[in-house]
Amino acid sequence: MSEAAAEKKENIPDESAGKRIPNGGNAAKSREDFELAAIYVSDAQYNRNIYFDTSPQAVRLYLLYHHWILKVLLYFFILLNLSLAVFEEPAVFPLPTWATMLVELFCLFAFSLRIGHYAKVIPRDKFWKDPKNICIIATLVLTLIDMVIYGALKAADCYGVRWSRVLRPLLLVNVTEGRQLRRAFRSIRNALPQIFYVFLLFMFSILLFSLMALKLLGKRDLKTIDGKPYFTNYVDIVFDLYVLVTTANSPDVMMPAYNANFGFAIFFILYILINTYIFMSVFLAVVYNNYKKYLKEEVRQLVKAKRHKMVRAFAVLQEQREEGGPPVVTRNNWNQLIQLVQPNLSSARRQLVWSVCDDKNQGFLDKVAFIQLADLLNIEVITVKPRPHPFQNLLPNFYQSAPSRFVCKVVQHRGFVIVFDLIILVNTIFIGLDEKNPLISNSEWVFLTLYLLEILLKLYVFEPRAFFSRHNFWNWFDTIIVISALIATCVNSALGSTGEYTSRQILDIVFILRVLRLVRVVDNIQRFRTIINTLIRIGPAIFTFGQLIVVVYYIFAVLGMEIFKDKVKFFDDPSDPDKQYCGNPLLKGTAFANLNYCKNNFNNVVSSFVLLVELTVVNQWHVLSSGFVTVTNVSARIFFVIFHITVVIIIINIFVAFVLEAFFLEYSDLQTSLEKKIEELNLAMEQERLEDNLVNAMETIDNNLGTEGSPTPSRSSMVFKISSKRYRTVDALLQRIFEADLAPEDLSENDDTEAQNTGSFSNPSFGSASP
Amino acid sequence: MSEAAAEKKENIPDESAGKRIPNGGNAAKSREDFELAAIYVSDAQYNRNIYFDTSPQAVRLYLLYHHWILKVLLYFFILLNLSLAVFEEPAVFPLPTWATMLVELFCLFAFSLRIGHYAKVIPRDKFWKDPKNICIIATLVLTLIDMVIYGALKAADCYGVRWSRVLRPLLLVNVTEGRQLRRAFRSIRNALPQIFYVFLLFMFSILLFSLMALKLLGKRDLKTIDGKPYFTNYVDIVFDLYVLVTTANSPDVMMPAYNANFGFAIFFILYILINTYIFMSVFLAVVYNNYKKYLKEEVRQLVKAKRHKMVRAFAVLQEQREEGGPPVVTRNNWNQLIQLVQPNLSSARRQLVWSVCDDKNQGFLDKVAFIQLADLLNIEVITVKPRPHPFQNLLPNFYQSAPSRFVCKVVQHRGFVIVFDLIILVNTIFIGLDEKNPLISNSEWVFLTLYLLEILLKLYVFEPRAFFSRHNFWNWFDTIIVISALIATCVNSALGSTGEYTSRQILDIVFILRVLRLVRVVDNIQRFRTIINTLIRIGPAIFTFGQLIVVVYYIFAVLGMEIFKDKVKFFDDPSDPDKQYCGNPLLKGTAFANLNYCKNNFNNVVSSFVLLVELTVVNQWHVLSSGFVTVTNVSARIFFVIFHITVVIIIINIFVAFVLEAFFLEYSDLQTSLEKKIEELNLAMEQERLEDNLVNAMETIDNNLGTEGSPTPSRSSMVFKISSKRYRTVDALLQRIFEADLAPEDLSENDDTEAQNTGSFSNPSFGSASP
Repeated sequence: MSEAAAEKKENIPDESAGKRIPNGGNAAKSREDFELAAIYVSDAQYNRNIYFDTSPQAVRLYLLYHHWILKVLLYFFILLNLSLAVFEEPAVFPLPTWATMLVELFCLFAFSLRIGHYAKVIPRDKFWKDPKNICIIATLVLTLIDMVIYGALKAADCYGVRWSRVLRPLLLVNVTEGRQLRRAFRSIRNALPQIFYVFLLFMFSILLFSLMALKLLGKRDLKTIDGKPYFTNYVDIVFDLYVLVTTANSPDVMMPAYNANFGFAIFFILYILINTYIFMSVFLAVVYNNYKKYLKEEVRQLVKAKRHKMVRAFAVLQEQREEGGPPVVTRNNWNQLIQLVQPNLSSARRQLVWSVCDDKNQGFLDKVAFIQLADLLNIEVITVKPRPHPFQNLLPNFYQSAPSRFVCKVVQHRGFVIVFDLIILVNTIFIGLDEKNPLISNSEWVFLTLYLLEILLKLYVFEPRAFFSRHNFWNWFDTIIVISALIATCVNSALGSTGEYTSRQILDIVFILRVLRLVRVVDNIQRFRTIINTLIRIGPAIFTFGQLIVVVYYIFAVLGMEIFKDKVKFFDDPSDPDKQYCGNPLLKGTAFANLNYCKNNFNNVVSSFVLLVELTVVNQWHVLSSGFVTVTNVSARIFFVIFHITVVIIIINIFVAFVLEAFFLEYSDLQTSLEKKIEELNLAMEQERLEDNLVNAMETIDNNLGTEGSPTPSRSSMVFKISSKRYRTVDALLQRIFEADLAPEDLSENDDTEAQNTGSFSNPSFGSASP
Repeated sequence: MSEAAAEKKENIPDESAGKRIPNGGNAAKSREDFELAAIYVSDAQYNRNIYFDTSPQAVRLYLLYHHWILKVLLYFFILLNLSLAVFEEPAVFPLPTWATMLVELFCLFAFSLRIGHYAKVIPRDKFWKDPKNICIIATLVLTLIDMVIYGALKAADCYGVRWSRVLRPLLLVNVTEGRQLRRAFRSIRNALPQIFYVFLLFMFSILLFSLMALKLLGKRDLKTIDGKPYFTNYVDIVFDLYVLVTTANSPDVMMPAYNANFGFAIFFILYILINTYIFMSVFLAVVYNNYKKYLKEEVRQLVKAKRHKMVRAFAVLQEQREEGGPPVVTRNNWNQLIQLVQPNLSSARRQLVWSVCDDKNQGFLDKVAFIQLADLLNIEVITVKPRPHPFQNLLPNFYQSAPSRFVCKVVQHRGFVIVFDLIILVNTIFIGLDEKNPLISNSEWVFLTLYLLEILLKLYVFEPRAFFSRHNFWNWFDTIIVISALIATCVNSALGSTGEYTSRQILDIVFILRVLRLVRVVDNIQRFRTIINTLIRIGPAIFTFGQLIVVVYYIFAVLGMEIFKDKVKFFDDPSDPDKQYCGNPLLKGTAFANLNYCKNNFNNVVSSFVLLVELTVVNQWHVLSSGFVTVTNVSARIFFVIFHITVVIIIINIFVAFVLEAFFLEYSDLQTSLEKKIEELNLAMEQERLEDNLVNAMETIDNNLGTEGSPTPSRSSMVFKISSKRYRTVDALLQRIFEADLAPEDLSENDDTEAQNTGSFSNPSFGSASP
């Protein structure tokens, strides 16, 4: 592969890393070989794409670099750094400047250590070619410079601006772990040129309509509802019509013209049709299309890089079985490798993975079979062992007795679920009623007891470890909610009985927990569960977009605080005369003050975030922004328009695009080829049967294991199932979205070209065998 | 094909129509045969799916049924019927009841004639099995009954409601010509179950959040900005939070809680994230997915039906060329057929179509080749004949002289376009300035002259018929705008010179035309043109959705007028004291009256439509609806909520889905196989070269026609090009959208099963050869 290509795309690992490959003979593999191969495999498994040196020392540093403690520390420092905004001027909780600066210095030091560590892991020339690193270093240096200047100005009692605070979120974007986030930013950046042209056309349309409005309405002496002249200033018309695109001033902006003449409604309806409906849909189409296109390309690169790494791992471990035959990996070496990659993998699970890889039962793996390993390890397979209930061992006679079996039968009956759904409904009504009534407030104890009883009964019937297995979301949900509610209710009544005082906070928590309990009723209805599963699946994506939004909000919040801080004040005391106009005489009589929006200000980072959310929702956008325009000047509009374009036109559309894509995936219901393979091996149970049941890990299964080729003794005693699709990573979801579109020929061709470059890989049938 | 299937899907023609097929021998075809075949071909071409009898009499009636005059009349009567709402109580232009009833009776009579005609064309049993016909007849009968009752009540001076007016738009949906519209309704109907379940979940989420809000905020004695208790009534909370989903009351609904405590912002932000962003995206995803799915199925049926009809046409005209050989259609019969199908097709065009069909140059067509005919006739091919300019013939010496050629060179130069773009820009500035200034108002004449000169120069240089050919949208646009502006300006100044009076209307038209002239500058920029082309292409779709919206609006407008008429009044006279509260004391002090929304009422059909548009835009939705709730009662909310669900959640999402789909099509840029074939035949010129040029039909082309196999003399003298993609029908666009997804095997399989049922068609390779 060429150097230039490797520079451009971080996803493509470089070739020179394979320099230790020519271990062609059948010499015994050293521990370092296995370690290196294990790193390649886990890099492939977790889609890490760091080019690292293959010397044992560098490998050890590389392993340390990926240690989870260091990662957690890194995230902690990033969060700490970002949260400084809460304590810095203008602060929610003011701290002296030296304190925040000290913490920030400490954070900078931590980031420097991390980047230094990274520089040690990868070769120097690679390090300096990665824009990510340059960006981090520049951010660190600029922050340091800013801190020195600010400190000096502060010491000299001059006014200083901490402008480098805007750069802080860039660290969140650029640390290696922020890959999802970086990808989202990249796909935005790539979509920008097309968005720009549509935006130009959109602006052209607004300008033309404004000109028409000026000519048609400017001379008619119409007045707005405030008695101001209507549509007489071109710039104001443009702004008003831009606001109309957000629909925030509809229908007010139209009323004076409409009141004057029916016909003008046509003008505004045409405007809304073209600019609000058509252009906004076009923006969505452009963003969506680009998002799909670039993401597809990135995932293609990701899949390619993953295979490449597996090929390298194979090259390290390969042996020549027979003279002139293809190189293979023996089962023994494979076992050692797996031991290193996933030490806590059960031997049964290892058996399963091996038998999926070695489906011809040859006792060794060729390259094609070996390469699947990374994907196979990523598929979560649950070992379903019909484990006996602990009581069965402790009190076998009692547990097997007729009453006990009757209880088991009742709890497993469909009616049990229905009865508790009814209880939830009754509970809903009780919650809705006034809790001052002693009957109602005491009924809470009855419901709590019932819910607790339900959980205990289920624990009696079902094996506890299976009941609380990682994938039983609703069991966890129920138990946590009920137990928290129990604790909170106890604390609340304890406080209530000791004196008059009842903590409002605890009561709030009790209420929230009570209502949350009702959510469970939804999961018992099949139709709803499908929708909820999809919603849960897009959870990680929403998290990524949450980060994206935080980055953008943080930048705008810091800017907004510098521009607008303390221009609008909120007074808690309702009798304060300044409250009428938010402490700023300029706001007297404006809609902003009249609607009591004083708390929507940029006086600290928390209110800034809330205000930015309100601006994202768009409604009353013009009132909020005009408030800040009034207290500063007209150019402040630019801030709000840029925010609208960035967040509403670009980022929200990317969000919608992601939700759409995830839902289409759900409807199409793809299955990776490896999942198919596992199912073909007859080890997977029907997933539906399991999911239909509330406690899905405990069924006794009479599976036709006997039909299989060579069941090993350890395997016949247990059953595997592919973990619920709910719990996939974002990467896996993305790969699944685009796997359907990635033609196998396409990939095989790419592999061929790569093979020509590397000289170490030439298996023409490879592409079609891979997922 | 089974009877049941034919009943269900109107797209599948019935088999028994093929009963005249066994004309197996080589007997000369009668005129009726050709007529029948021609009907099949044009039915296939225009995707008509009416099952008709094949007796000569029925065929003649069928032809009459599709006569364009009858169709125009039908649409006229539908429009007349719908527009009665303007004249009926509550009327924009009141007419006596007997007059509107008379016109309506007349319309009903016309519709009865049409449906009677239709009943004559198709067999009786088919007629009664089509829900469309039942719907039309039921509508007619119900309307008649309603008219009688209403007339009787009116005569007895009782209060009567013309409830059947709601049914009027159903006629627009159900007449045979409303296929696009019916399809849109069908895909909505099909998506309803899924939308319903998501909606239930969405409502469940709102109810839970409302309960939580009641518990958290109800007891805190908070007040809204009007001093009313905040969040104390559960039903009101549900409504408020439903409104928050539309974002119409953000951030006002949150302010009291937010002012009381920062923390409550989290509640509202979570609510907005889940219900506004996630659920609304899910609605879009569900609507979009269903729309795609069902449309795909319908288009598949359409393509199948089209082929089926072509097979029947083939069966009518087929001849056995040699004993035991496959049946074929000779060129002679084919020519006669084309003469009937498209009498005005030029012989050169016919040559082209034949040579595309008969690509092996055999002199006859087999079934596979014959079947393409319908698609081929649908591809608009423009005959580009390098016709000489009329002046060339009239004044050859003058036209060929040096100055004349210089003019031609100048006009064709790129600079000419740039100069006129600059003129447009200068004109923009002049328009923006005050037209009271005599210099400015006189400059208008200069610009008009310049634009007129531009058009005349172009007409001098380019052949006028090519310049005004059907596909040169911008030439037509320019000329119409400039000439209308010239006329309007002349009229305006004539009126101005005769007296003081200047007609405001004419001045408005002048202004609009002036501004519209500026639009042209956009088409000269390549990037913009691509976007605009896509926008123009989705024009027909927007028209279909326009009809859909009109149907829904009409129903809601009629309902709204019955419920709310004259409850809210608008007073033109600003001094009227009633104006303060829209003539209804109940509205005193409400936001509705304060914001001067009095003209947004249901007092006639035009204001109802404007109001419904405002409700579609959603902003201030709660103020508008609460106004009408105040003047009636709380249950009126149901009307507004149902309108919101119908229009905003369902119909607007279908609109967005269509725009997205059309844009993705544009990006993928599909080409039908027949278009490819034409291009392969080297007859198509590079379209881009043509489109790059403003006057794209006039270039002299040195095309390498010589490379072709057997160029006929008539063809070598002219060049064809596939008409710009801009001007396709909705059906063609849809078929193109889904053609990529329709796997050829899939189709061939369907054709096979059909062949088994019909017994008259068995060509296994058929599927893969067709587009």
